[in-house]
This record gives sequence, structure tokens and C-alpha cells, in this order.
Amino acid sequence: MRSHFHAEASIEVYFKLAEMGGDMESKVYLYDTTLRDGTQGEGISLSVEDKIKIALRLDQFGIDFIEGGWPGSNPKDMAFFERVREIPLKHAKVTAFGSTCRPNVAASEDDNLQALIASGVSAAAIFGKSWDLHVTDALKTTLEENIRMVADSVAFLKEKGLTTLFLAEHFFDGYKANPRYALRVLEAAEEAGADWIVLCDTNGGSLPHEVYDIVKSAVSQLRVPIGIHPHNDSGVAVANALAAVQAGATQVQGTINGIGERCGNVNLISVVPNLQLKLGFTCISNEQLQDLTQLSRYVAEIANMTLPNNQPFVGHSAFAHKGGIHVSAVLRDPKTYEHIEPENIGNKRRVLVSELAGQSNLLAKMEELEIDLSLDREKAREVITRIKEREFQGYQYEGAEASLTLMLLEAAGKLKNLFTLDSFKILMEKAAVQSITSEATVKLSVNGETVHTAADGNGPVNALDNAMRKALESYYPCIANMHLADYKVRVLDENGATAAKVRVLIESASNGEKWSTVGVSTNVIEASWEALADSIRYMLWKEGCVEADNHAAAGARVGIVNH
Amino acid sequence: MRSHFHAEASIEVYFKLAEMGGDMESKVYLYDTTLRDGTQGEGISLSVEDKIKIALRLDQFGIDFIEGGWPGSNPKDMAFFERVREIPLKHAKVTAFGSTCRPNVAASEDDNLQALIASGVSAAAIFGKSWDLHVTDALKTTLEENIRMVADSVAFLKEKGLTTLFLAEHFFDGYKANPRYALRVLEAAEEAGADWIVLCDTNGGSLPHEVYDIVKSAVSQLRVPIGIHPHNDSGVAVANALAAVQAGATQVQGTINGIGERCGNVNLISVVPNLQLKLGFTCISNEQLQDLTQLSRYVAEIANMTLPNNQPFVGHSAFAHKGGIHVSAVLRDPKTYEHIEPENIGNKRRVLVSELAGQSNLLAKMEELEIDLSLDREKAREVITRIKEREFQGYQYEGAEASLTLMLLEAAGKLKNLFTLDSFKILMEKAAVQSITSEATVKLSVNGETVHTAADGNGPVNALDNAMRKALESYYPCIANMHLADYKVRVLDENGATAAKVRVLIESASNGEKWSTVGVSTNVIEASWEALADSIRYMLWKEGCVEADNHAAAGARVGIVNH
Repeated sequence: MRSHFHAEASIEVYFKLAEMGGDMESKVYLYDTTLRDGTQGEGISLSVEDKIKIALRLDQFGIDFIEGGWPGSNPKDMAFFERVREIPLKHAKVTAFGSTCRPNVAASEDDNLQALIASGVSAAAIFGKSWDLHVTDALKTTLEENIRMVADSVAFLKEKGLTTLFLAEHFFDGYKANPRYALRVLEAAEEAGADWIVLCDTNGGSLPHEVYDIVKSAVSQLRVPIGIHPHNDSGVAVANALAAVQAGATQVQGTINGIGERCGNVNLISVVPNLQLKLGFTCISNEQLQDLTQLSRYVAEIANMTLPNNQPFVGHSAFAHKGGIHVSAVLRDPKTYEHIEPENIGNKRRVLVSELAGQSNLLAKMEELEIDLSLDREKAREVITRIKEREFQGYQYEGAEASLTLMLLEAAGKLKNLFTLDSFKILMEKAAVQSITSEATVKLSVNGETVHTAADGNGPVNALDNAMRKALESYYPCIANMHLADYKVRVLDENGATAAKVRVLIESASNGEKWSTVGVSTNVIEASWEALADSIRYMLWKEGCVEADNHAAAGARVGIVNH
Repeated sequence: MRSHFHAEASIEVYFKLAEMGGDMESKVYLYDTTLRDGTQGEGISLSVEDKIKIALRLDQFGIDFIEGGWPGSNPKDMAFFERVREIPLKHAKVTAFGSTCRPNVAASEDDNLQALIASGVSAAAIFGKSWDLHVTDALKTTLEENIRMVADSVAFLKEKGLTTLFLAEHFFDGYKANPRYALRVLEAAEEAGADWIVLCDTNGGSLPHEVYDIVKSAVSQLRVPIGIHPHNDSGVAVANALAAVQAGATQVQGTINGIGERCGNVNLISVVPNLQLKLGFTCISNEQLQDLTQLSRYVAEIANMTLPNNQPFVGHSAFAHKGGIHVSAVLRDPKTYEHIEPENIGNKRRVLVSELAGQSNLLAKMEELEIDLSLDREKAREVITRIKEREFQGYQYEGAEASLTLMLLEAAGKLKNLFTLDSFKILMEKAAVQSITSEATVKLSVNGETVHTAADGNGPVNALDNAMRKALESYYPCIANMHLADYKVRVLDENGATAAKVRVLIESASNGEKWSTVGVSTNVIEASWEALADSIRYMLWKEGCVEADNHAAAGARVGIVNH
């Protein structure tokens, strides 16, 4: 299948633009549609409260337009617009999404446009058709009537005093099929007074060279500023956004972390640093840019989604170095294996300890973890061997640096044994119509004393966690401050399923700080126990927690025998 | 930071190439480095057995070069080359990775090059420096000595009869800093007889317009065929690969699913369909291309990684439609919201049932699930309400279509009640030095009879699963064929941690078919029970399993009261 696109475009090369100077310093506006297009993504669902939280954060970050929803389509979106009016945003314009009026209906009579006005926003973005085939086959109206709908709808919103963005749906496919008609639709929106015209690659099928050229053509024929709205179905949405800006577009519409229908919208988290750090455009301040990583993680957390570790720029692995050659070089000069400085976007460099690691990795890691163990070569070799053994068993320290720290401290003989497990039991019962009950009993040795206690919980791990805290809190009161922030179970050998080995990762938090621990077993409860115990031990070490007065330490042994 | 890159390139536009015809039909070679560069990715670890499995699959898919590892660097890689020699590959050339010889060492004396020969491969890829700064600062040698190292190493491998690829590390950064020197390095490799020269964007910082132009320049000055090796640190690796091919490169080096150090290598899974379906190049046969989705999922499974649902082309959501407008349009004409036909790459269209859904989605879903319930409007509305309620509680049917099917069947009164839970108990015990034990007892009613039995397990869910099978197998012998393939736990409300609501997703398999079910509870065991029960109920319905002869059904009730 060959591209059947024959435009008469100017002959220019991308990179030439990089030399143009003046223009390149200019502002590119950011339009975020996480709250609307983003929620079309599979598995994404945001409450009104979630949306308010995200809107506040987007505003701080310097986003220019925050698309909050489609007021005509569902009550949740309308509730958002009501709530957001009470929130004082510093910079962003809250924008409502909708469509042009229907065929043969005056804009002023159209429910959907009325709902935009009723939402109380000062900016509205309406989409309309620019692909002739869609007009005749999907809308089932004439090409002329579609032009009327676009013009009438834009004029109506302008008359009501709204900043009006016209989104040309399927513009790139439409332009390839019938460039004259596609451009006529844009001209109609411009003449009706649109403040912005946004070119949408609705199906996400366009490639950068096409986007560059088609945007160039639109820019040359219109006076109104142009935006780009790319989707990632071809895996090139970020490149498409950059190509559009290089061709003269001055607004990018996308979402945080690229969430959205199918393969998602363009990821603003990747677009912004490319535009600002590499191409010299201005989107936000450099201080705001330093919040990029945190913003990405915050939205992921609210949306309850797991970010890929390898996400460009902000991923946990984006500046992580594993291969031996890379590690030693990057420690000498970060430029050798890093394309930008992670500090500029609030991310940080990491050195991975893994089966590929050598002593230089281990030393760099200890420095990063801020522990000075002064291990001799022999001891260091032992630790590396131990890590390799544990990794072979299924442990993964890359995501559980607190467990790694404990292992290093233990190897160096610098970890006091604060408690020892004697035994635990967990009993769960469920009768047909009743909820399940979970009870845990634990017997621990703390400073030579035996503590034997029991607690209920919402589940086996929660019951165990409660019983352990109950047993330890009177000895180590600082435990009261910590709580578990995340709990993940990963099956290591798919073929075994529920009989397979599982890895449990626990993230704990205390006073805003977070740490992660790991446990591995064929039994999910035993793996959870390991991770729970590590989590408490790490907290006790990190916070320098000591025993409460009535339980003064009496010659605590070095070494841990919990599991 | 402005790009400081000043090349004197030809003035051309990308898209012009799309019109060139002849050349565009030409072959682009695929070089896969999943087994080497891919394993540098955080959390990725492959056994020798895993590597062999993947190599076989890559060969079937039509990959031209399979890079198996770095024989000089670790014993596992050497073991792979030994094993792979016994495997009859149909098409692919197994390739070993290494570096040029060290400064002031003759190629014939270099251990690393010796190891390449010893690995017994017929093709070798060696990397060398092409950025002047790296030569003087990292290698700490002279620019002339580096040229000698490149030429000597290539000549040595050619003399030994190997197909030799020279990988110019940091070529794009090197070219920007000192184009004359960067090109001199390539010329040295060409003169020494290299079969391929591969330009590496090692730090992943280059953008498509730069890649296009720099590749163009290299292609125009060399006769040897050129490859591209992009990394995804800027989120534009796929676009960079396409730009390089459009500029004349005829080999792309990447990995399956884009795994690799930091943000990964370029994802061949996205590159291949773009090149072949959109730009008219040939990489593999159209039949092989239909294996794209399965290949992606197979490698993810072996590497034990979770694929993002929104992965371009092959993701579970890549052709999934959620928004009401999109759904009704795509059902009329797939072209309206799909950039390619999913069948061409072995993926399929899906319609999502969600809070955004209307009746048309529900009907389309039933068609997709191949169930005909002839629900009336009233009943359909009830089902949608029920789905919305359950989604509000935390259920998610997008990833658990078997549970959705059961709910639809139940609503239509078409599901027989094959068993009912009376009660279950689970007891786990752990003493300090012993492994944990798990025992489950279950009491079920099956056809008016009470079955009361018990089983051990490797963990609580496994014990419960074993006890249920034991109770049911004599009634429904087909249960013996099914097994659990995956088990996932997701915490729904991070703030509550172990006391929070969890969602359990279970994937079950029988005779190669897979299905997924869901359970939600604050108790992980109760949630697992729900998903387990659904999984068995679905199997019994799908397979049309009936009771064994000695337990003939006696007026089974409609409706399920398991949980």
C-alpha cells in the first residue's frame, strides 16, 4: 500500500528550520486533553475529584488550555465544570469540548452547543468534519451543509464571547483525499472568527514527513494560528507533533503520559522537553520543566496506571545504566550516554545492580544510596555473588532498593537484629453469604522477650501487617508513622500459575518518603511476609528509630533471621 | 539549547521520497538485538533456553540478522552460541556482538575479537568510536589510532570469512561535533571491507530531521550499505528509523517491543508495519507480517514483561473503541477510525464495554463474544446499569471478558447454576525456620449434593484452587484440562494499601485457548475466589461440559450464588 498523497508542497528540509533563529524561540501553546481524550483510554477512569486534582497540577505546570470534558455527553463532565469554577487557576484556560451543530440545525438551536455555553467556560473546542467522505457517508449530508455547520457553530460561540478552537477531525486523511475541500473547511472556520484551528490526525496513521508537509500547506494558506492533535497508532505521535511545530504550528494538543483512545494521544511529557531543550521553543518556564517527572508520576498515580519504566525522559529507567561499559563511562562523563541532563526535567541518574554488574556498579550504587560501608574487595565480591544468587531465585533489586540496602548493611555487619520471627498463623473463613474474615497470630522475639499477639484484617496480608505492628509498636513507636502505599504481586513462571513462584513488591511510605522492598516465594503470603519485614526493618534503620525507653536494647545481635 | 548542527545537506523533503517508486519497493533488512541490547533493559533477564526459543521465533518471522550476545562478556552468551549451532534456522544469520580491538593491540591479538571467532558465528557486529571526543576522552587514544583499530578489526574479521558489520557508536553526536572525522571512521571501515556500516544513535537524543539529513550525507559518501540503530530516549526512535530508511538506509537494528537499555531500542514491532504497509518497502512476507501481534506477545511472555495495552499496532487496545461516536462509526466503516486493517498484522478489533457505553456498544460486544441473547431494550438497560455499578465497585470487564460473558448470560437467564459455595476455610502456618504451609477446605453444593473436601497448596489461592478442582472434577471431568495461566493483583486505592480494595485478574487456559476473569474485594483471597469461580464457570459453559454420568443434572437452577 503506497501513500496516495500528492501535495504540491514547498521543497524544504526539516533541519533547515533549526537554523532559522528568531521564530524558533517562539512560544508553543500546550493544550492538555488528559481529562477528556485521555479518559477514552482503555482502563482509564477518573472521578470528578481526580479531575480537579489533575487540573490543579496541570495549571501549576504551565499548561495553557485544560480540556475538562464534553459537557453535553455525561453528567460527570458537567459536574467537573461546576466544581472547577470554584477553583482559582493561575494560568490555564479551562476548555470544554463539543462538536459542531448537527446537519440542518441552527447553531443557536443545538443542544450540544448550548451545553458548552451552560458549562460556564471561557473557551470551547469543537470538532467538525474535514474529510469529504466522512461528510457524505458518516454525517450523511452535503459538503456545503458541512461548511455551513462549521461556520455557523464557530460564529455562534464567538458571539457568546468564547475563545473558540475549531478541531478539524481527520484533517490529514481528508487532505490526502481532497485537499481543496479540507482547506475550504479550515477557511470557513477562520472566516467565522475561530481563534485557533487544530489539525487532527484522528486515526493516528500519518507519518512525520506527511504531517510536516500538510501542516506547512495549511499554515501558508491561513492567518489564524494552527494547532496539531496527533494520535500514536503508528508509534510516531511525538515526531508528528515536532514536525508540525517545525512546519509552523504553535499549539500541541496531547495528554500526560500519552493516555487516550487505542494507542493514545501524543504524550506531552515527551513533546515538551524535545521542543524546549532540543529545538529551542518555549512552552513553560525552566522551573516548571523541572516538575515534568513528578507531574507524569502524579497523574499516573491518580489514574491508577502503571508507568512503563522505560518511558522516555521521565521513566524510572530513563537514566538508568546497566551495561558495564556504559556505567563506567557515564560515571566519568554523563554526556557519554545521556542525551540531556536528568535534573532539567526532575529525573535522576541511576546505576543498576544486576547480573551484569561488576564492582564499579556496586560502589556507585552504594554512593547513590548514601551508604558508606567500606567493604573490602573480598566482601564486595561476596555481596555481588549473593545478589546474583538472589536474582537467580527471582528477587529483583532494581525495583526494591530498600531490600538491597538492607542486604548491603547486613553483609557489612552494620544491621542490628531488631526482631526475629518465631511463627505466624493466618486463618481465613468464608461462608456462602458472609464476607470473608482474616485473622493473624504472630510470635516474635524482641530483645530476648517473646511477644505473642493477634489481629484481624481485611485480608491475610493486612491481618499479618496489623499483627506485626501491634507486636512491635510498643518497642519501636516510630512504626506508627509508616503505612503501605502499594502492593504488587507478579507471577514469575506463568506455566505454574497459582502454584508458581511469585514476587511481591511492597512500597511503604512515612512522612512523604517512599521505599520499596521485595519478597519471593511460591507462597504469596510468605513472599509478602518477607517484603513486609524488610519494609519495617528499613524504616527502623533509616529513621534511626530506637527502642522505646521501657525496652532498652540489651546487646542486640548483628544479623537478621526473619526468613 | 539550540542544535549546533550545521551540515551541508541536499535540500529535499521526506515526502518526496514517497513518490519515487522503484527504490521504495526495495528490501529493508531487519537486524534484531532483543537477545543482546534488549537484555540491557531494566528488569529484563533471559536464560539460554529463553534465548533459543526467541531466536527460533524470530527466524520464522523473517528477521535477517539475530544478534545473540557478546561472546567475550559472559558465559551465558557463549552458551547461547554453542546451543544455537545445533538449531537449524531457516533464514536468519546468527550474529555475535563485540567491539573493535583495544588501542595499541593488534586485532589478531585481541581477546574480544578472538571470542567472536570462537563463538562459531558467520556474522559479527563490532562497535567502534566515531565521535572524536570519545576517542580522546573515553578511549584515551589518538584519532589516528582509533582509525587503525577500526580498519584492523574489520579486516581481521573479513579475513576470517565473517560477514562483518561495523557499528559506528555515537555517530550522530559525532557527526554534529566533527563531521569530517565521523565520516573518516566510516570510510576506514568501508575500505577494510565491512559488509555493512550501521549508524548508531547511542544516546537516543537525535530527532528525525537530523537523522534524515545525516544518514543522507553518509549514504552519499559511501558505497557500502548503511544501517540505522536508534534508541528511544527522545520518544522518536520509530520516526528516526523511518527517516533513516527514507534517506537511504537499508537495515534497521532494533528489538521486539522496544526493550533495551534506558528507554529501549527502536521497536521493530512498530517499524516493520510502517515500512511495509505505509511506505511500500519490503521487510518480510505478508504472511509473516500477520504473525506480528503474536510475536510481540510471545517475546513479552518469555521475557516475563507486561505489554502496555496501548502499544501501537499490536496492543490489546490498538484497535479497541470506547467513545460512543467512534464505536458507531467504526462499525459502519472501520476506515473511519482505524489507520490499517488489524488483520494484516494479526491483531483484532474490539469494542469496549465501559461507563461510556451505550446500547450499541453492548450489542456489538455480544456479537464479538459470539453470544446471541436477544435481550429486549428493558433487559439491555438493566445489564448496562449492572455493568456500571460493578465498574463503580472496581470491576473492570475490559480485561475480563469471560466474567462479562457470564454476567450477560446470567442476565438473560441462560446460565445454569452448576455449583454453589457453602463455605471455605484457609489456614496458613509458618514457623521460623520452616516453609509456610497452606491448607484449604471447601464445602460446595453440586446438584443438591454436598461435597466437602480439603487440599494443600503452595499458597492460599493454589490451595483453594486445588480443593475446588478436587471437589468438582468427579462431577465435571473436563476441568482436568484447564490450568491457570496468569494471576495479577492490583490495589485499587493506594492510600489504603493492604487494607485497600484489590482487583484480581486471572487468566486461565485449556487446549491453547485463554480467557480472563475478575474478582474485587478488600480481601485478596475473596477476590481470587470470585475470579477462580468465574474461570471454572466460564470453562464449563464454553466447552459445553456436562456432568459426568454418575451425577446427572437434576433441574439445575438458573442463577449463580457463589459470592
